[in-house]
Amino acid sequence: MTEFLPYPVERVHRLIEPGPTILVSTSDGTTSNLMTNGFNMPVRHDGLLALVLGPWDASFSTLVDTGECVVGIPGVELMEQVVDIGNCSGADVDKWGRFGLTPLPAQQVRAPLVAECLANIECVVEDDRLVEDFDLWVLRAVGAWARVPLPAAAEFHHRGDGTFSTNAGIVDLRERMIKWQYLQA
Amino acid sequence: MTEFLPYPVERVHRLIEPGPTILVSTSDGTTSNLMTNGFNMPVRHDGLLALVLGPWDASFSTLVDTGECVVGIPGVELMEQVVDIGNCSGADVDKWGRFGLTPLPAQQVRAPLVAECLANIECVVEDDRLVEDFDLWVLRAVGAWARVPLPAAAEFHHRGDGTFSTNAGIVDLRERMIKWQYLQA
Repeated sequence: MTEFLPYPVERVHRLIEPGPTILVSTSDGTTSNLMTNGFNMPVRHDGLLALVLGPWDASFSTLVDTGECVVGIPGVELMEQVVDIGNCSGADVDKWGRFGLTPLPAQQVRAPLVAECLANIECVVEDDRLVEDFDLWVLRAVGAWARVPLPAAAEFHHRGDGTFSTNAGIVDLRERMIKWQYLQA
Repeated sequence: MTEFLPYPVERVHRLIEPGPTILVSTSDGTTSNLMTNGFNMPVRHDGLLALVLGPWDASFSTLVDTGECVVGIPGVELMEQVVDIGNCSGADVDKWGRFGLTPLPAQQVRAPLVAECLANIECVVEDDRLVEDFDLWVLRAVGAWARVPLPAAAEFHHRGDGTFSTNAGIVDLRERMIKWQYLQA
C-alpha cells in the first residue's frame, strides 16, 4: 500500500502550479464520487487554490452542500483511468470500483483521499462568489499528503483537446530566483 | 520575424490548460511592462481565463487602470529570460530592452504582443470581484495569435520552487474523450 506522509499546506502550490490534470473527490457522507479536472491553479503560496467545477459535473451539488473536496494529483501511470473518469458520470457508475481506485479516509474533510495518487490535498471552500457566474471556486487546503518518496514531475497535463503531455527533464533555475528565494525554503 | 496568424479565441484554453509559465504585458499608453506568471488557468472553453496578479507586481496598477493585458506563452528557448523577467521589476528596468524582447502592436488592446512568444492572447478584464481579497482576475480573450507553425508542447512549467519542467511526448487519448468530443473540433 502506498505510504502517504503529511505534506506542508503552504507548499501545495508546488503540486498545482505545473498544471496537472487532477482528480477531485467529494462525499455526501454516504457515497463518494470522483471527477477529472484540468481547470485549476494556485492562488497564494499559503494553500489557497482555485478550480472550475460546474453543474455539468455530478460532484457539483455535493461540493455546494458540503463545502469540501479532496484534490488528488495522479501520476502518468493513471492517465487512461483519469481520462475515462472524466468521460463518464458518477450519476451512472461507481467510479472507484470501475477504475480500481481506493478511497482512504481524509483527516479534515469527509471526501476521501485517492490512494493511487501521488499526493492529495484536503480542501474546504474559501470563497464562492464567482461560482454562480463562472463556476470558479476558491479553495483552502486544510491538509495535504504526499507519497514517500514523491516521484519527480510525475503528473501529466491535458492540452485541451484530448491530448496530454508528460514531463521531460527538470531544469533547476533556483539560482536565478533572486526575488522569490523564500519559495525554495 | 515570427509570423503570427489569428488563433481562435474559443480555443485559447488549449494554450493555458497545460499549465504554462506565461508572460503578461500591460501598457499605460506611454510605457509597457512585462511580468512572469505561473498562477493561471482556463475558466471556460470560450476564451475566459483567470490569473493571479497582485499589487506586489508593478503591472498591477496598469491592469487596474486599463482593464487590459496580453498573455504571452513563451517556449523553452525563453526559459531563462522569463525567469529573470520575474525576478526584477518594471519599476526599475525596461524589461523589453534588457531581455531582448520585441513588443508588437495588438489589435484589440493597447498592451503589446511579445514577438518571441509561441502565442499571444489579447485580454480584457471580465470580472474583478475577487481582486481585492485574492488578486484573482477573470479575463476574456478578445483576440489571439499563434506562430505558424505552432511548435508542439513547447511551453514550460514552473514547479513552484524555481525548478521548471519541459514536456516529453504527447499522448493522444482523443478516442477516449467520448463525453467531450466537441473539444477536438
